[in-house]
Amino acid sequence: MDLLDEPVPGVGTYEDFNTIDWVREKSKDRDRHREITSKSKESTWALVNSVCDAFSGWLLMLLIGLMSGALAGGIDISAHWMTDLKEGVCLNGFWFNHEHCCWTSNETTFQERDKCPQWKSWAELIIGTTEGPFAYIMNYLMYVCWALLFSFLAVTLVRAFAPYACGSGIPEIKTILSGFIIRGYLGKWTLVIKTITLVLAVSSGLSLGKEGPLVHVACCCGNILCHLFTKYRKNEAKRREVLSAAAAVGVSVAFGAPIGGVLFSLEEVSYYFPLKTLWRSFFAALVAAFTLRSINPFGNSRLVLFYVEFHTPWHLLELVPFILLGIFGGIWGTTWLGHYPVLEVLVVTAVTAVVAFPNSYTRTSTSELISELFNDCGLLDSSKLCNYDNANVTKSSNELPDRPAGNDVYTAMWQLSLALVFKMLITVVTFGMKVPSGLFIPSMAVGAIAGRLLGIGMEQLAYFHHDWAIFRGWCSPGADCITPGLYAMVGAAACLGGVTRMTVSLVVIMFELTGGLEYIVPLMAAAMTSKWVADAIGREGIYEAHIRLNGYPFLEAKEEFSHKTLAMDVMRPRRSDPPLSVLTQDGMTVEDVETMITDTTYSGFPVVVSHESQRLVGFVLRRDLTISIDNARQRQDGIVSTSRVFFTEYTPPQPPNSPPPLKLRGIMDLSPFTVTDHTAMDIVVDIFRKLGLRQCLITHNGRLLGIITKKDILKHVAQIANRDPDSILFN
Amino acid sequence: MDLLDEPVPGVGTYEDFNTIDWVREKSKDRDRHREITSKSKESTWALVNSVCDAFSGWLLMLLIGLMSGALAGGIDISAHWMTDLKEGVCLNGFWFNHEHCCWTSNETTFQERDKCPQWKSWAELIIGTTEGPFAYIMNYLMYVCWALLFSFLAVTLVRAFAPYACGSGIPEIKTILSGFIIRGYLGKWTLVIKTITLVLAVSSGLSLGKEGPLVHVACCCGNILCHLFTKYRKNEAKRREVLSAAAAVGVSVAFGAPIGGVLFSLEEVSYYFPLKTLWRSFFAALVAAFTLRSINPFGNSRLVLFYVEFHTPWHLLELVPFILLGIFGGIWGTTWLGHYPVLEVLVVTAVTAVVAFPNSYTRTSTSELISELFNDCGLLDSSKLCNYDNANVTKSSNELPDRPAGNDVYTAMWQLSLALVFKMLITVVTFGMKVPSGLFIPSMAVGAIAGRLLGIGMEQLAYFHHDWAIFRGWCSPGADCITPGLYAMVGAAACLGGVTRMTVSLVVIMFELTGGLEYIVPLMAAAMTSKWVADAIGREGIYEAHIRLNGYPFLEAKEEFSHKTLAMDVMRPRRSDPPLSVLTQDGMTVEDVETMITDTTYSGFPVVVSHESQRLVGFVLRRDLTISIDNARQRQDGIVSTSRVFFTEYTPPQPPNSPPPLKLRGIMDLSPFTVTDHTAMDIVVDIFRKLGLRQCLITHNGRLLGIITKKDILKHVAQIANRDPDSILFN
Repeated sequence: MDLLDEPVPGVGTYEDFNTIDWVREKSKDRDRHREITSKSKESTWALVNSVCDAFSGWLLMLLIGLMSGALAGGIDISAHWMTDLKEGVCLNGFWFNHEHCCWTSNETTFQERDKCPQWKSWAELIIGTTEGPFAYIMNYLMYVCWALLFSFLAVTLVRAFAPYACGSGIPEIKTILSGFIIRGYLGKWTLVIKTITLVLAVSSGLSLGKEGPLVHVACCCGNILCHLFTKYRKNEAKRREVLSAAAAVGVSVAFGAPIGGVLFSLEEVSYYFPLKTLWRSFFAALVAAFTLRSINPFGNSRLVLFYVEFHTPWHLLELVPFILLGIFGGIWGTTWLGHYPVLEVLVVTAVTAVVAFPNSYTRTSTSELISELFNDCGLLDSSKLCNYDNANVTKSSNELPDRPAGNDVYTAMWQLSLALVFKMLITVVTFGMKVPSGLFIPSMAVGAIAGRLLGIGMEQLAYFHHDWAIFRGWCSPGADCITPGLYAMVGAAACLGGVTRMTVSLVVIMFELTGGLEYIVPLMAAAMTSKWVADAIGREGIYEAHIRLNGYPFLEAKEEFSHKTLAMDVMRPRRSDPPLSVLTQDGMTVEDVETMITDTTYSGFPVVVSHESQRLVGFVLRRDLTISIDNARQRQDGIVSTSRVFFTEYTPPQPPNSPPPLKLRGIMDLSPFTVTDHTAMDIVVDIFRKLGLRQCLITHNGRLLGIITKKDILKHVAQIANRDPDSILFN
Repeated sequence: MDLLDEPVPGVGTYEDFNTIDWVREKSKDRDRHREITSKSKESTWALVNSVCDAFSGWLLMLLIGLMSGALAGGIDISAHWMTDLKEGVCLNGFWFNHEHCCWTSNETTFQERDKCPQWKSWAELIIGTTEGPFAYIMNYLMYVCWALLFSFLAVTLVRAFAPYACGSGIPEIKTILSGFIIRGYLGKWTLVIKTITLVLAVSSGLSLGKEGPLVHVACCCGNILCHLFTKYRKNEAKRREVLSAAAAVGVSVAFGAPIGGVLFSLEEVSYYFPLKTLWRSFFAALVAAFTLRSINPFGNSRLVLFYVEFHTPWHLLELVPFILLGIFGGIWGTTWLGHYPVLEVLVVTAVTAVVAFPNSYTRTSTSELISELFNDCGLLDSSKLCNYDNANVTKSSNELPDRPAGNDVYTAMWQLSLALVFKMLITVVTFGMKVPSGLFIPSMAVGAIAGRLLGIGMEQLAYFHHDWAIFRGWCSPGADCITPGLYAMVGAAACLGGVTRMTVSLVVIMFELTGGLEYIVPLMAAAMTSKWVADAIGREGIYEAHIRLNGYPFLEAKEEFSHKTLAMDVMRPRRSDPPLSVLTQDGMTVEDVETMITDTTYSGFPVVVSHESQRLVGFVLRRDLTISIDNARQRQDGIVSTSRVFFTEYTPPQPPNSPPPLKLRGIMDLSPFTVTDHTAMDIVVDIFRKLGLRQCLITHNGRLLGIITKKDILKHVAQIANRDPDSILFN
């Protein structure tokens, strides 16, 4: 008869678009763990069970690493193939991409690796020649058509099957990790559609990257694999630990930077990141990176996305251009990215394709462009950017001195300048589109172009004016003193940092790309400058902006709450409001409670000893209350509207002929958080953040006075920042 | 007349060996920050002031980096010189060490770099020859004498001037960072004496390392430099943020691993590590690493302590020996290190010196030994460990295949085995001594020797039995399949991990040494195994053991509290005790309060509305109360024993002829933390950890029932673990 005996299904779960109670979830997990541990002493089977339970976390990490690595590998291969398909096809088999098609060809030297007879451009295939304007137009047309087809497919699939698949997904993942529930956001449909449309969107040549969305893909993998283990399936807090690790996996496979990925998760997306998760994320990130590498059959055996090797140390004076790049990155980071919800995807695709094709720097995939820009020119490099005048160079030396630029370099600089303007404009427009799209790579490209241009400029300046005071001493003729590739790298870091406001993780990701600690200082200077500039201009990072626009209840952990208000200024009810709706522990009937539920919209009610004393007993959630009463009315004999509701430990004997009482102590939270009305709001905010609370009760001299919910705090923060408090939509 | 008008000096400070209140400290800092921000709008000077304040954190980090890097460089150089002084002296100037002495010598080739005419061994200098048993004995004697002199000086200086300078200091720093106060532990005397005695202790040849103590040195630098900035001098919480960064700096200079250092601070020593500190620590760690490198005039230009470059990938099957090394490391980690408080320092030094001299692997400094063990043998290496039979090797190839070992290798293996036994025994004894001593390097040496021995064994096995099933396929003749240096590295990581239970930071430090992501997996496997084995054997890490032995109040954040007790089971007073000592908000005289203070030893008292209602108003600290009453009696007119004490906001008018009231609301904490008696202890522990509380009040249905302090929790934890609850000594 007692509801305490068996838990009512549904009690303790959450509704969609609601915030979880971290304390309750973690407490539930500790109960579960305690039960398994105590049972393990009883039988061998229970012991085995307990050991399995202990290792299930590691197994889950292994599976996430394998699955995400495999998916990322698949996405990589498909995107490569489809990007090349826009230009031509392989006669050996249409499923080969350009590089793989010419891989086995014996006739080609290293220089002409991309010109092999098996690979036919569309013009060659259809009209039999690659020469002449007609062939050019033919290729041009095919390029635009394929781009349009891909982007049409991408946008249609997203719209039809999984609207959650668009964007990078990082802001939503941040919100989810902070304890919000968005059902289906990390589901299997989102995963399938996001994977497919990501390949399509990247291949269409739109100015977007696959790196951010890979975080979403990895989190979907994590969430889906959680269903294999009861421990993680049933506990929202434990599942979020796994998702934090999955976010690290995402960055790890995106850049081949496991340590950077873990720090990204720690710094940028995670909310609750215990040390155990740090260790496990690291494991998962490594597994994923190695899985990706062993899958990638054509690529180099390097783990990282852009491998660079520089030979020259940088000079202290170069910090000036690096800081300039930082300022550029900061300004770029405050551009109104994503503020244009573009619907005409096909128009943008067409414009992108039409403008991109004639310029070789915009035609190739953005990752290849970045690779080329980061590259330190060797003697054998055939790139236009490496067309230097090598007259004075002795072939034997490993270090190449600064040389005057050849004509091709100047051409390349013009093309790069055009590409820079184009990329900047089109990225701003592209990011609002409803396709999976990341900002990492386009931002890096913008920065890399700017950096390379500045780097070449500096190099030529130093070569032709090595007698200037600033160059004297370190740029004597014949010295290799300026590396334009390093400038490109610093620029890329600056722009990425400006957009995302990443700091440590950004520098570590870049460090993992170069592997040299020496270049950390320039990267750091640029990342710091760009963050400061972007913060000073006063716009928030792209993720925060997105979260705010969507009205998600996200309590930013990075910003200090610095306003001098007290809990009594923020709590409900306000002075003019009707008093707080409370339940009494033994004085109400089922009908009274039901009336209170229908009359109010609050998510929960405090339980007090009596209306007069206002001494707090506990807290009951609306959802649990509704479910329990409905359940009792259906399944418990004699529960009617006049049954008295008891939240006390012992139910007094009921008078004869009265209906049986309804005991609800089991659903009451006996340890609600309370603070006094004089508590400074900065402390309250700290408690909410650190403990992950949904609500906190306010007392004055031991009497219950009011309540503060997470939403109240967010509204208060919005009000202080002169924003509309009603922009916070969810609890 | 009102005490609220001007703060009483001393109120809000802490006594030695007490725990700080994180919430109050952070709140104080936010008040300060708010004040500066609001003033900054008033005048230009205030604006400049506010900008300076904002950047003072960065400036402090820069200074800490520079100072710690410089000190570490000085320690390095001095220790090198004094270690060499035990063997001989340089004729060019006694202040040159062996390497530097022979640096400029033109006559020497690379192979005989250490034999130059300017460097004289003691025998050569005194009796004019290096040949014969007499010269050997002469050198032997001088070696032992110098060692005894150094260790005598070290132990005398520590005992006379700074007893806090002994040991590695990391356990105490952990405790301090968690909010404990040990005055003088990070003071200037400790710094000076620790720096000097560290050099002496290392040079004496004792089996100890300078890496751990460098963390203490860096933290001293941090603490001393904090005094330059009011923001950090006056706020215990802010100062601990700086100390967290300083700990990162310490590891950064010890190993040349800035990222590893930051993760070490995050994972191992820090308690409160906000993201802002992450970013700043990283900056400080980098500055320190570069300062160290630019100071070190003789050393290689590498940033890291042990630079290694391996050429061969590892094979999956090799995970078996790696895991074996992990098990060895785990067992080593549970050795009773430091359980022998050795007083006979000179005896240990003598034994160390006497036993160490004849074996070349124990005579050289431990860092050099580790470097040699990590090294992958090239063709030119003159080390005995690299004496392979190179008959079948073509000189041109870069990759050396596995070769049969020469005689010297077998000799070296014998010597290494003896060195292993010696190191293991002597390290256990040495660590209890009252000199600055770290465990990092001796542990790494033990692991590296074991690993190298296993590695050579595996290599020879694979060479001579390449037809065995397990070697087939990857160890064909002529292939370079096993790298003994990698085994040494894995062994070093395993032993270090076993002792310290570091995980991520250990792997990252090792990764920074090699720079190759490829070798992370073996390191990770070993680190994980050693941690699991050590944890399974059931002893805690060396730092935790040390903290527990000293009775420091440290609430471990890594272990989950998993016992099912409620707050009411832990709180004071227990059922049989007298009721809780409380102050009433308006019903007590000065004498009543003073009696309560002298009758009890509690650190604080709750203030209630009245004894009958037990409704909580606030909390007053004993120290603040004593100081305020003493101050009022001295400085306020008419305050006598019969004066009434008021904690209320408004003081009712006093009857005529009665003494003036004493208003103490100003020293009362109006927002004490409360939880209900039904709160599960795991939640309470979580709150204590996350918010850094000293005490928490317990209520039942709105009435004050009792109190839980940090000490109560630690005693409860000790009791559950079947340890003596009275071993917790401090509040």
